[in-house]
Amino acid sequence: MPYAFLLHLTSSDPRPPRYPGLYAHGLFFVLLGKLDPGLAAAVHAAPRKPFTLAVLEPTPPARRGGEASGEVVLRATTLDDGLFGPLLGVLLREGVAGLALGDHPYRLARVVATPQGSPLAGRHTWEELAAAPPTRCLRLRFHTPTVFATSKPGRRTRHTPLPDPFLIAKSLLTSWQYHSPLRFSDTEAAVLLRLFELDLEITRFADLRFERAQAAKGFFPGFTGAVEVHCHSESLEVQRALGMLQVYAFYAGVGAKTAYGLGFTMPY
Amino acid sequence: MPYAFLLHLTSSDPRPPRYPGLYAHGLFFVLLGKLDPGLAAAVHAAPRKPFTLAVLEPTPPARRGGEASGEVVLRATTLDDGLFGPLLGVLLREGVAGLALGDHPYRLARVVATPQGSPLAGRHTWEELAAAPPTRCLRLRFHTPTVFATSKPGRRTRHTPLPDPFLIAKSLLTSWQYHSPLRFSDTEAAVLLRLFELDLEITRFADLRFERAQAAKGFFPGFTGAVEVHCHSESLEVQRALGMLQVYAFYAGVGAKTAYGLGFTMPY
Repeated sequence: MPYAFLLHLTSSDPRPPRYPGLYAHGLFFVLLGKLDPGLAAAVHAAPRKPFTLAVLEPTPPARRGGEASGEVVLRATTLDDGLFGPLLGVLLREGVAGLALGDHPYRLARVVATPQGSPLAGRHTWEELAAAPPTRCLRLRFHTPTVFATSKPGRRTRHTPLPDPFLIAKSLLTSWQYHSPLRFSDTEAAVLLRLFELDLEITRFADLRFERAQAAKGFFPGFTGAVEVHCHSESLEVQRALGMLQVYAFYAGVGAKTAYGLGFTMPY
Repeated sequence: MPYAFLLHLTSSDPRPPRYPGLYAHGLFFVLLGKLDPGLAAAVHAAPRKPFTLAVLEPTPPARRGGEASGEVVLRATTLDDGLFGPLLGVLLREGVAGLALGDHPYRLARVVATPQGSPLAGRHTWEELAAAPPTRCLRLRFHTPTVFATSKPGRRTRHTPLPDPFLIAKSLLTSWQYHSPLRFSDTEAAVLLRLFELDLEITRFADLRFERAQAAKGFFPGFTGAVEVHCHSESLEVQRALGMLQVYAFYAGVGAKTAYGLGFTMPY
């Protein structure tokens, strides 16, 4: 069952972390290692990570009564059924003593794991996701810089920092196929991809901004903003898949480097 | 030789024309018909029009001394060598009596055809365009809504209102191949297209806005804004073609319906 939850971290050091995405990624693996070194190694080696991370804008200092302290809000999602419970356990255990983001020590002040606590948190069973209402209109907002990495012949990788409807749908479907126990057959997935390529069209975008973002060892061109995509296909299967992938985007994110803070996406 | 020129039109009726792109397109064909009915029919039947039109924001009324009059600035470009001279002749002759945009009568107040008169006007010989300096960095600003129309199997047409680098380069190259006497061989053009597909990448965009625009009989999703594209190819031929197409964009515009006011583009 995919989960999305927020970790409110506080520090006596008011300076923001320099490489928040990279540090959050490192912290995540430290915690996994404390939980189970074998699991940490397996997750590290996996071609697609079973989690996403995003570092959110912290509450402005003025609203914390002027106290000179640092606050970071990490949004994490887990896509592997066995990961959430044990990870939360080790977080609560280690969080009291301190969690490091880079060389800053943080304390875990609060965990928010329900939509009542924050619209950015929640959980869905895979069955609930698969039963999401069909839609002809995909609406997504990209909150952190989002980019698609495409392999081209001759070991070239090209980046697309634009909300291309086909690349959005392909990214979500590929993630679903990798992580969900309710995945489509290869033939069904190929047919869906082909119809996404033919029948998706942008009907609106808003607040589209270019943002160069650091993730892992490099800088990536990315975009933030909202996009609305219409599906011309009359096929109920396609519309069902689209409705499901729209809800799934809340957990999976979109595009490259979602485990380093990129591609945090919300349906709207 | 491609030309770009501005027509300042004034009217005693202060209401702006309702469908400026459509009316400008109509006016252009009325003028062509007065010049040579055979030419007008040939241009009308041509799969790609040898001209582009854009209706620009008029000077705000306050700056015209508060006088209640209507002003429209039409930017026109010609891509056919024989078109500019005769067209200007008929414009000057008819412009005194009156030119109609829809049901509004206008008078031609001024023609600006040189870069000294306006940075939006100018001319280049085909040879000058072909000799433009090579570049690895394509910089274009889309001043009126721009959209790419792509034919898909099953008579589907899909619209892409995003500054996709490959679609930009492909649009410019296709126009060049159709209009220029210095066109590439089919093989050269195919190689260029393939390298554009592999080696172009957005490095920045700015002011990207979605705008639904009317052109001809329909409404189209479109974008305005600026984009910067890097060419990864080491090939001097590719960089030469890119430099040439960047300058050519000033005359050809980019994407669909450039003869109806869409896709007016300036290098920057």
